[in-house]
Amino acid sequence: MRAVDIIQRKRDGEELGREEVAFFVDGYTRGAIPDYQASAFAMAVFFRGMTPAETVALTESMMRTGEVLDLSDLPGPRVDKHSTGGVGDKTSLVLAPLAAACGVYVPMISGRGLGHTGGTLDKLESIPGFRVNLSLAEFRTVLKHAQIGLIGQTPQIAPADRKLYALRDVTATVESLPLISASIMSKKMAEGIDALVLDVKTGDGAFMKTFADSKALAQAMVSIGRGMGKKVAALITDMDQPLGRTAGNALEVVECIETLKGRGPKDLESLSIELAAWMLFLAGTAPAMDAARQKVRQALTSGAGLRKFQQIVELQGGDPRVCDDPGRLPRARETVDVKAEHDGRVARIACRSVGQAAMLLGAGRETVISAIDPAVGLTIHKKVGDLVIQGEPLFTVHVNERRRLDEVLALLGQTVTLAAEAPERKPMIQAVLD
Amino acid sequence: MRAVDIIQRKRDGEELGREEVAFFVDGYTRGAIPDYQASAFAMAVFFRGMTPAETVALTESMMRTGEVLDLSDLPGPRVDKHSTGGVGDKTSLVLAPLAAACGVYVPMISGRGLGHTGGTLDKLESIPGFRVNLSLAEFRTVLKHAQIGLIGQTPQIAPADRKLYALRDVTATVESLPLISASIMSKKMAEGIDALVLDVKTGDGAFMKTFADSKALAQAMVSIGRGMGKKVAALITDMDQPLGRTAGNALEVVECIETLKGRGPKDLESLSIELAAWMLFLAGTAPAMDAARQKVRQALTSGAGLRKFQQIVELQGGDPRVCDDPGRLPRARETVDVKAEHDGRVARIACRSVGQAAMLLGAGRETVISAIDPAVGLTIHKKVGDLVIQGEPLFTVHVNERRRLDEVLALLGQTVTLAAEAPERKPMIQAVLD
Repeated sequence: MRAVDIIQRKRDGEELGREEVAFFVDGYTRGAIPDYQASAFAMAVFFRGMTPAETVALTESMMRTGEVLDLSDLPGPRVDKHSTGGVGDKTSLVLAPLAAACGVYVPMISGRGLGHTGGTLDKLESIPGFRVNLSLAEFRTVLKHAQIGLIGQTPQIAPADRKLYALRDVTATVESLPLISASIMSKKMAEGIDALVLDVKTGDGAFMKTFADSKALAQAMVSIGRGMGKKVAALITDMDQPLGRTAGNALEVVECIETLKGRGPKDLESLSIELAAWMLFLAGTAPAMDAARQKVRQALTSGAGLRKFQQIVELQGGDPRVCDDPGRLPRARETVDVKAEHDGRVARIACRSVGQAAMLLGAGRETVISAIDPAVGLTIHKKVGDLVIQGEPLFTVHVNERRRLDEVLALLGQTVTLAAEAPERKPMIQAVLD
Repeated sequence: MRAVDIIQRKRDGEELGREEVAFFVDGYTRGAIPDYQASAFAMAVFFRGMTPAETVALTESMMRTGEVLDLSDLPGPRVDKHSTGGVGDKTSLVLAPLAAACGVYVPMISGRGLGHTGGTLDKLESIPGFRVNLSLAEFRTVLKHAQIGLIGQTPQIAPADRKLYALRDVTATVESLPLISASIMSKKMAEGIDALVLDVKTGDGAFMKTFADSKALAQAMVSIGRGMGKKVAALITDMDQPLGRTAGNALEVVECIETLKGRGPKDLESLSIELAAWMLFLAGTAPAMDAARQKVRQALTSGAGLRKFQQIVELQGGDPRVCDDPGRLPRARETVDVKAEHDGRVARIACRSVGQAAMLLGAGRETVISAIDPAVGLTIHKKVGDLVIQGEPLFTVHVNERRRLDEVLALLGQTVTLAAEAPERKPMIQAVLD
């Protein structure tokens, strides 16, 4: 087998066999196939796509370049959720404790935020002492005790993906459905899970801007997961406005704790409950979705979810007192309000711009090497459909470094479109693939 | 400007500007842009193609990475011919002396053979002492004296092409019309010529197997040449059977000398005259094609072409006595005939297989590092339409190393298809783009 022949076959639209895909992925990861062949291959995939069988083969090959967790010794089903990322998307911190409190194991390996979208790891690290870089052995121990573990990508998980993603980033081959879905799924499938719920965001603040693109990505990932023998469902959910009322790491942690106390924003609460219910349902711990929702709501109202959150914070080295005293979380030096210049109803929030404003404040990364400021971010006072009176705050900006504040204020000043009438309400969950 | 943005724009089907193309080519040649970006770019070009303007920009940028000869001090028009390569294609050695004898300058920088097609340099090097690796200064001196110079690619000519071609070879990006034509033309346009005649081969023994593909390549190259302000014409000529009656380096030199003496095979003679006539016509030394043909025939019958050949052989260090004594050229140790097994008329010769047989004997290269044996090759006794009597030789195999002889004989035994009736005669020149 020669790499150049595999590239040529893909270029010419032929279907590659499992062995060819594995040969290429293994060779590339080991360094036997050079970057310049991998980038030509990726570009050929960009144009030709991949069949479902090829995509499964790619995902499996990438997964097998690293460690694949075997959690079969845990006495319960293992299930995770993955979101494609958005602005204010913080459901993991709410649904993982809720699901774990309902009796499933949640071995969650998350990524960091990049660009205008936040990352679960960055939010967790805003909790003083919280360690996301557990070894896989520590992760296993934490999981066993708390039914939940929240860690970051380790170098042992799917090293092919790390190498290939870095290459795609500089060769204009990121935007390929099979490459995107194999990248996500190769890491998730290494978690040793039985089931996975996918939250595929759609809209201005999402990676996929249109419903059609989001659906295609969701389908590709569902097809991979099933091809690998897992239970998978995907929800396509709205990202045309931020989720909840905060964007920024410590601010989002506070909001999640509030939600686990039953005092969170309705959109965040209902989506978290829905995703957690899907986790239980797929895991087989609830016979139907209604029963699953019931169970999750129970864990919320009883405080079991909050206690689970507190437990995992403590087990991973964080300060559990943040649950009762948000003052223990980092806080920005000052706040500045962005106020409405006239009356109206919120017709539209430019979601991506809100994410960018948060990033400019330091809540997100412009490049992979940028540092995060856990304290900064935004409070989002008005959501689509809300009535606004002139002079009311639309946003509160939590700022430490004033350097780019003007830019942030200018950006936020243009994000909210006010109108006489409220627009038709879009459903949060736009489709379910199950 | 960033390489990744240029790749992405090409990927998305946008037209690149001159500066973008030049930035990419220069950066790649200097090593500032890595192989993996260049291969992704090449693959994007494979799928998206290039506009005529982009292709000219690519050719010019590649040409300008190296030396561009300025031959404007020569007191006459400078014109060259380029062939896309075939089996037994040896017109350069006939037409270059003829054209030079008619008063144009022929600064011919040629390539070596690869695969089943021969190369002008390899043929010339079968002449004892002949030096193809003159410096550009020596080349200029030889040209001034003899109106002709015959050398190989030097590292100073279009280094971008050398680097990019090697990369394309291992990334399945060879078969791209703009990349192929820019590769050829970047080297030819560096020769400091005013006009260029292209001989684009079509058929089984050619790089382009179909007329449509050959025409597309011809059009692309003509368009580049004109875009760079040169006079260019292209002839699309038959390569469904070998040209002339020999394939193999010294054997072909003998055949060319015979042709310059007026005793060569008709197909080789007439194509060489036609191509040389186009050279004179484009160069403006003949007012019309009829007059140009007349002039070239005159140079042939008067022996002026042969004398010019003798002169250049001597000037470039070769033994000019080969013209009168072919015994001074290398000769194979033995000959083996391949005979007809029954009567018939030649309906078809599998041209590519004939070329491969010559290559297996050592007349061509399987890989760029293979060594050439100048003595070996084939005499082709029967051409399409010829009557064959059982037991007559179809080929004479000139062999030194018997190691692969069985393979060669088996291959040749299947190349000639005999039939009751001769097929319709295909014209040698299938189209002219002028």
